[in-house]
Formats: sequence, structure tokens, C-alpha cells
Amino acid sequence: MTDFFARHRQMLEDAVQALHTRAFWTPFPEIPSGKIYGETAKADGEAAYAALMGQPFPLPGHPEQRRLGAEVSPWGDSLGITYPAADAPALITAAQAAADDLAAASVEQRVGACLEILSRLNRISFLLGHATMHTTGQAFAMAFQAGGPHAQDRGLEAVAVAWTEMTRFADSARWEKPQGKAPALVIDKQWTLVPAGVALAIGCNTFPTWNSYPGIFASLATGNPVIVKPHPAAILPLALTVQVARDVLAEAGLPADAILLAVDEPGAEITKQLAIDPAVRLIDYTGSSTFGTWLRENARQAQLFTEETGVNSIVIAATDDFDGMCANLAFSLSLYSGQMCTAPQNIYVAQGGIATDQGHKSFDQVAEGLAAAIDTLLADPKQAAGICGAIANPATRDRVEQARAQGRVLRDGTPLLLAVDADAPVAQDECFGPVGFVIPCRDADDGIARAADLAVRKGAITAALYDTDDARIGRAVRAFARAGVNLSVNLTGNIFVNQSAAFSDFHVTGANPAGNASLTDTAFVATRFRRVMWRRPAAVTV
Amino acid sequence: MTDFFARHRQMLEDAVQALHTRAFWTPFPEIPSGKIYGETAKADGEAAYAALMGQPFPLPGHPEQRRLGAEVSPWGDSLGITYPAADAPALITAAQAAADDLAAASVEQRVGACLEILSRLNRISFLLGHATMHTTGQAFAMAFQAGGPHAQDRGLEAVAVAWTEMTRFADSARWEKPQGKAPALVIDKQWTLVPAGVALAIGCNTFPTWNSYPGIFASLATGNPVIVKPHPAAILPLALTVQVARDVLAEAGLPADAILLAVDEPGAEITKQLAIDPAVRLIDYTGSSTFGTWLRENARQAQLFTEETGVNSIVIAATDDFDGMCANLAFSLSLYSGQMCTAPQNIYVAQGGIATDQGHKSFDQVAEGLAAAIDTLLADPKQAAGICGAIANPATRDRVEQARAQGRVLRDGTPLLLAVDADAPVAQDECFGPVGFVIPCRDADDGIARAADLAVRKGAITAALYDTDDARIGRAVRAFARAGVNLSVNLTGNIFVNQSAAFSDFHVTGANPAGNASLTDTAFVATRFRRVMWRRPAAVTV
Repeated sequence: MTDFFARHRQMLEDAVQALHTRAFWTPFPEIPSGKIYGETAKADGEAAYAALMGQPFPLPGHPEQRRLGAEVSPWGDSLGITYPAADAPALITAAQAAADDLAAASVEQRVGACLEILSRLNRISFLLGHATMHTTGQAFAMAFQAGGPHAQDRGLEAVAVAWTEMTRFADSARWEKPQGKAPALVIDKQWTLVPAGVALAIGCNTFPTWNSYPGIFASLATGNPVIVKPHPAAILPLALTVQVARDVLAEAGLPADAILLAVDEPGAEITKQLAIDPAVRLIDYTGSSTFGTWLRENARQAQLFTEETGVNSIVIAATDDFDGMCANLAFSLSLYSGQMCTAPQNIYVAQGGIATDQGHKSFDQVAEGLAAAIDTLLADPKQAAGICGAIANPATRDRVEQARAQGRVLRDGTPLLLAVDADAPVAQDECFGPVGFVIPCRDADDGIARAADLAVRKGAITAALYDTDDARIGRAVRAFARAGVNLSVNLTGNIFVNQSAAFSDFHVTGANPAGNASLTDTAFVATRFRRVMWRRPAAVTV
Repeated sequence: MTDFFARHRQMLEDAVQALHTRAFWTPFPEIPSGKIYGETAKADGEAAYAALMGQPFPLPGHPEQRRLGAEVSPWGDSLGITYPAADAPALITAAQAAADDLAAASVEQRVGACLEILSRLNRISFLLGHATMHTTGQAFAMAFQAGGPHAQDRGLEAVAVAWTEMTRFADSARWEKPQGKAPALVIDKQWTLVPAGVALAIGCNTFPTWNSYPGIFASLATGNPVIVKPHPAAILPLALTVQVARDVLAEAGLPADAILLAVDEPGAEITKQLAIDPAVRLIDYTGSSTFGTWLRENARQAQLFTEETGVNSIVIAATDDFDGMCANLAFSLSLYSGQMCTAPQNIYVAQGGIATDQGHKSFDQVAEGLAAAIDTLLADPKQAAGICGAIANPATRDRVEQARAQGRVLRDGTPLLLAVDADAPVAQDECFGPVGFVIPCRDADDGIARAADLAVRKGAITAALYDTDDARIGRAVRAFARAGVNLSVNLTGNIFVNQSAAFSDFHVTGANPAGNASLTDTAFVATRFRRVMWRRPAAVTV
């Protein structure tokens, strides 16, 4: 049995250190370069992806009652891959059968296996890039990063936090209580980590690995067998993950069924059946608040970790780099056609206009500046495709079309830019997809108040402010902190409000309705296992 | 403004260290001795308690719409104390008015204040002892320990875990991401700790301070104003606590209303109204699962930390110290008349008898041994009163009287010892009070299985085993670990299954229905606050 823990110990310690300092760090390079991943990595990834097309996907020993799979690439082609599928009771039974051995394994054995899984996933990042591209509609460069190294970072982060938490307290102790002149009481104590139960990880269509890895790896590291339930339109990236994980688990002397794939078809999802099973005690979920609310109401036996709906806002108060601001926001609005939980939606601009390095700009001039910057960014069709990608779900296009009638078109196309009133219903809820609402407000403080209030009521994952007034920036910092939203101030250049870096940025704060899971804080792992003691007098030999 | 944090820093660091090693440690001596607490401490405590009788209890500046209070000592006398009382909306308003200043305080300021509060509470441990004795019915020695130093230990434990968690990650960082040959991206980040909201601590009748301090201090340290809602029969110990805390908060430059007392009367409790208020985001609760379930169903806006009902079991498989075992269990069954969440209830004994150092003992002989040991322990009336205390609530006596008809009386009196069948309904649920059920089982493994199964279904906080067979002890360790119960093996002498030592024993595991709050693990504090960031390019000067 390979000692995966020893192999990856340094990486683990570096990760723990990075999490503490929150400085930049990653072991998984984000650049899809042959110099880093091997000269043949690009070709190998393409070939591996091509070889999967139209074939039954192999998961040896996995529960299988039938084959399912109907993925169609947002870029055009059917994938034609079928996956082993089993109904909910069969998956629960298999997970439960793996539970005792997984729980009995040492912390090092489980953590070592998780680290090896992540390292092997990193090696197939090109394949994961193609799999992500053709299930989410992301352009390849983004699919490589978000589906590969960035997701691996988030998985490693969860493993590192789980490791820290599992080893935080001694696992045995001799407790000696003085008794005055009498001999001390001496008790020997031992603690066992007891996992919560079967875990269910419910994936989303747009970031199948990035959003699922934290829950999957946090549960697995802490000893809970995981049933991975992909969105039926984005199975392949998670199927590859489960395939790699099962191989490594077996090599580590752990049950392969400690990770299982729950494949279903649109309209015949087995998610609800899995979620309410009494054996399921942990659920990680990314998606709409509608289903999030259903889970809260119905899966009462499970702990629920969620990332849900929210309304992300930008407040434009003033800028000393008008062109840089517009270019930066153009990219944030265009990237992956706004299909990101971190993409901005509401852009509040003082109705009387703002001060800039180019002099006063009226509300309309600011809106025109944004529209023009998007036009410039997306002028070249090839570059536009590389930034905007494709729409993952037809419902997204319908949603944006319906929004169009609610405002004045400032820029048509993808992304759509609309001027709408602050109180317009369309601006009060998430409109997931390629649309931004430019909203006149009384002044910048009014915009800050409206954005923060929306975050409190409807949730928000990101906020941004452009301003040159220190006092007002301070007020915004306090308002958005109270609203539980991470705030980016005066971003220009190559860093964007929608970006959240593992090991540094906590993704989702847990402090507003956009979700209760913060990636990755202690709360995300701390209740996935419990400590149980046995103690006895030290003098007694048994 | 006094620097309380600097004053108590060493105690805090020692507490953090003790929590890690789980070895014996306490800064608050448990012995009610003048040598430790000062030669006049005993007399001072008595005088201070006498001076409170029949008087309005002073809480300067506290919301007050009327005066309430109808406490009667289980030892006989009415206390005659009235407390300032306000309705739920007034208390919520006052708590919310204190929230911003408490949240804006530094971690050191809040933690320092908490440590000073605990230190001052320690100095009035004799007074707290009398207050606890005359509200709970505990005998003085126990009331001093459980109401004073042991409760203070549990409060300090919560503060230490909160401190560790709040300082776990950097609160600011410079994030530098290499960009190949281009200049690195340099972002400055800052994190603010954002408290969850108003906290409600619902106290119980039997351990008003011990069971409430963890939640109170965890919430206060992490920046949440706390409304302390005592049981109407056990107000004084928590009123004294709130009085001391308000003084210290004011001295620390923090709002006194960050801790408030919610006094009500039996039959007119305001607990439900407080619990469902949208502002209340944290609830700590000790009591029956009936009300725990009500809270889960109705206080959906709040995080809920509970200690609830359970059935604690003992399995007697074999012993090499029959007299020591019986004497130990006699004390565990008698202490405070079984009015402890950790007191044993079901005692499983193999129907064919057990092997002991005194030869084979039949089921009846084991039962007789236990009964005789209790008789011996309680033969002296004064000693009996010192161990058994008084019954806090008349319902407890009724409950035990109803149980009497369900079994064969092995020993009458307090505690009552009954022989009942394993499947008897009375043995399937908690029967809180001075009663033990001696239950014949097929063999020791059957007893272990029954006890563990009950723990899984109905909850349990403690379990004990007497055995001499290593293999069976190993099986019991695994069975009780899976059931989420802390197990004590072969306790004799001066250590008892009902004892749970701060800084070493996690009280309640969170892994069965007896509660989800483990005192004090990371999960108990981690979600009481969240981290919110703001970031901006390092080059920009604002």
C-alpha cells in the first residue's frame, strides 16, 4: 500500500500555511502549457477526450442497473457517453457498505488518498478542460482553469482545513487530577473521530467540479462516503473525478464505493429521493434558492451546505481611471456570458453623473462607456467566443430575453446592457445570464445602501465599488460587511470582481441568503465528524 | 479603559494549550476553601446571599417594565427577590442597539472582557454556590462546584475556542500573483468578523450556570449580544452573572446591554416569543427534546445549539472489584438525586449473572449489591442530604412515582432502584430523576447492543461498562463510538460516569439525538460569526 500521505505531506503543510496567511499560493498551475503539464499533455488530453465520445464510460465495480447519459455540448455535438446508473436505494446501500472501513481508516490514510486523487486530477487537467468545456459551454482556456487547477485548489483547500480540524485536539490523553494528600486520579482517555454519515454532493451545470470539490473532499477526508450527483447536463467532469478517486481509494486500501456517481436524466432526477434518505446526513448543494428551500424543508435529517441565488452589485461613485474601469467591468460582464455566481448584475450609478479623470460623466455617458468597452472587448469574434463561451442552458437565454422588455437597451447582444429603474422588479432578483442592469440612484451612498440592502434580503456573493472618496469607501466597507458580501474596490487591469482565489478569498461568506457554506472556513468541515471518547482508570490493565 | 486582555492573556494561552492536550487543568479551584478563596470568602458569600433575599435585584440601566420573580428554594424558603423584567420586543430592541458597538470592538476587547467577567464570577463563587443551591436543590458543596468554578471552566473553554477560531486566519493579507514577465498582480485584502446576530441562551432549572455559560460566552466573545433567559425557578445564578457581566462590559468600553436578562414567570414564559424573533440568530438551549423539537420547527431563522433528552446506560459484564463497582455506581445514581443529564438510568446485567472477584454473582445478587451500596452510602442522613440534595421540580417526583409501578422494587426511596424488562416502555425513554432500572439482558454483548441502540434512537450523553474481557471491551468501544456516546470503563473510586471535566471531556458529542452542541468543540463557535473581506489593488492609494 502506497504511503500517499508521506508523498504529499509537504503540499498539505504548504496549503495549511497559505490558508493561514491568505497570501497567493497554488500547487496546481493555471496555465495550460506544455512546459508545465508536459509537451504531449495538450494532445493527450484531446485524444483522451475524443476516445470517450460515444462510448460506455468505465467505472469498474460501480453499482450499475442500467446505462444513462444524454449530454450535449453547448458548442454543438452530443457526447454520446453512457454512465453506469443505479437507483437511489442501491447507491445508498453501496455507500453504507463502504462507511465502516472508511471511518476506521486513519486520518493520514484518508487525507493521503484525497491528496493523491487531487494530484492525479491535476495531471489530467487538459482532459478535464475538454470535459468541462463541452458540458458547461465555457471556452477552453476558462474550462481548463475552472474545471482543472482552480477546482483542484478548492478541493485541496477543503482537505487542508479538514486535516487541521481533525488533528486540532489530542487523540489520547492521560488526565491526572490532584487529590490533595491522596494519590491523584489518573484516567486514560482516547478519542475516535466519528463521521456524520452518507454525504450527497449535488453538482451544478456551470461549474461541475469547482463547486463540487469542496464538499466532496471535505466529506471524504472526514470519513463520509460520498454520492456525487452531477447535473444531468454536466456529468463527464464529475465522472472522471469519481473514476480517478475510486482507483486511488482502492490503491490506498480503502473501499472504492466510498465515492459513487448518481447519474440520472433530465425530468427523471433522483436528487430528491437521495436527499431525503435517512442515511444521508450531509448535503452539499450549488444551485437555485428554489431547490435550496426545498432541501431545507424536506431533507431535515441532513446538514445542508449551500451556495444559492444572489444579486451581485456594483456601485460607480467616482473613478480616476474611467477607461480602466469600463474595460474591467466589460470583462466581468462578458466572461462566460455572466453564467457565474460571482458575476455582477446591478450597476448603480448616481443619476447626476460621476467625477472621473476625464471630467464629469453623466449617467448616460457612464452607460455608454461601459457599452463601448464591451463592444471593443468583443469586437473580434474569436476573442469574443473565448471570453463569452456558450450558453449552458436554453433557459438562460429565455430569461435574458424576458428581462429585455423591462428596461431601455443600452447595448444589445451578449452581454445585454439595460437601463432600469432602481425599484424595477427585474433588478430585485437574480437574473442568471448575460445581462447587466445600469440603475440610476440618488447618489453613491444611495447606491451603496440599495446594493447592501438587496444583499441582506436576496443574498449576494460579490460587490464592487469604484470611488475616490476615502470616507465613502469606509462607509461602503462597513455597509457591505454588515450585508455579508465581499467587496472589491477600484479593480482595473487583470483582476476581476468575479474571481475568487482559493487559499485567500473565502467564497461565499455564509452571512447572507446567497449560501451558508463559506469556501473554505472551519464551519464547512467542523460538523462533518464528531469526537467520541472512551476513558478508564490508568491503573487498570485490560 | 482597563486592558483586561493583557491581564488575562496567560490564562487564555494556558486554556488553549489545555484544550489541545486534553490534560487536567483549571484556573478556578473547585474546593470551597478559605485558603484558596480568602479567609472571609465563606462568610462573605453567606452574607451577600442573605442580603439579596426579599429585595429588588439591582441591574442598573437594564430595560425594566415591571418586576418579576417567584423563586422558592427546593430546600424550603421563598427567595423573595424581584428582577427587572421587560417584554420580548423591548429586550430585542435593547440587544440590537448594543450590536454594532459590540461587533465593532476588537477581538481582544471582547475576549478580554469575557475573561474578566469569568474571573470576577470566580471571586463570588460562594455567593454563586448559595444561589445555585437554593434554585436547583443541589447540596452546597456540589452547588459551589457546579454553579461556580466548574461553570466558569466551561465558560472559559468557550472563550478560548472562540479566540482560537477568530484568530485562526490572517485578518489582512497582501496577495501577489505572478504574471509571467508582466508585473505581478498585487491586491491588499482585509477581513472583518461579522457576528451572526442576537443570541438567546435558554437556561435550565438544574444547572443554570454550567449549562448556559458555554453559549453565553461563545456568543459574547464572537460579538453577538446575548439575551439570557433563565428558567423561572432558577433566575438568581444567571442574574448575578448578568450583573457582573454588565459591569465589566461598561468598564471595557462596551455596551452593558450586550447582555440582558429575560425574566418571566411559570405559565407566562416569553421564551417562544424571543426564539422566533427574526433578529434572534443564535439559540443555545438545554432541556427536553419536546421543546427542542418545537424550536427546530419554529425558530427556523436561528442556528440552534442544544443539549436534550437521552437515556444513559451502564452495562455490567464482569468486574474484578465488585464492591468498588457497586460503591461507584451507588454514588452516580444518588448524586443530586439523578437530576443530571449525565446520570445513569438503564443498568444492563446478564440474566445468567456475571463473574466477579467474589465469584459468580446472579442477576439478583448484582442488584442487591447495588441496592446495599446505596443504603450504605446514604445511611447517614446528613451525608445523604449532602449527596442527594433536594428535588428541583415537583414533576420529577411524580415521574419517578409513575415509574415505580412499571417494575419490581429493588430498593425504595431516593434513588429508587427497579428491576424492569429490557423491552419495558419505561426503559425506552429518559425518566429524569432519582431512579435506576436494572435490566436483565441475554448476555453482555446483548446489553451493549441494547444500550448503543437506545443511544442512536433516543440519545445518550454517557455510558459505562464494567468488564474484564479485552475483546468485549473493544467491541463496546466501537459500538458506543458509532452511537456517539462517551464511554467510561471500570470506574471505581473517586471518579464517576456523570462527571465531565472541562478542557478534557467533550460534553455531548453531537453524534446522537441527545444534542448537537459539543462543549466545547470548534463547531460550537465556528458559525457564530463570519468573515467578510474587502480588497483593492495595492497600488491604489485611497
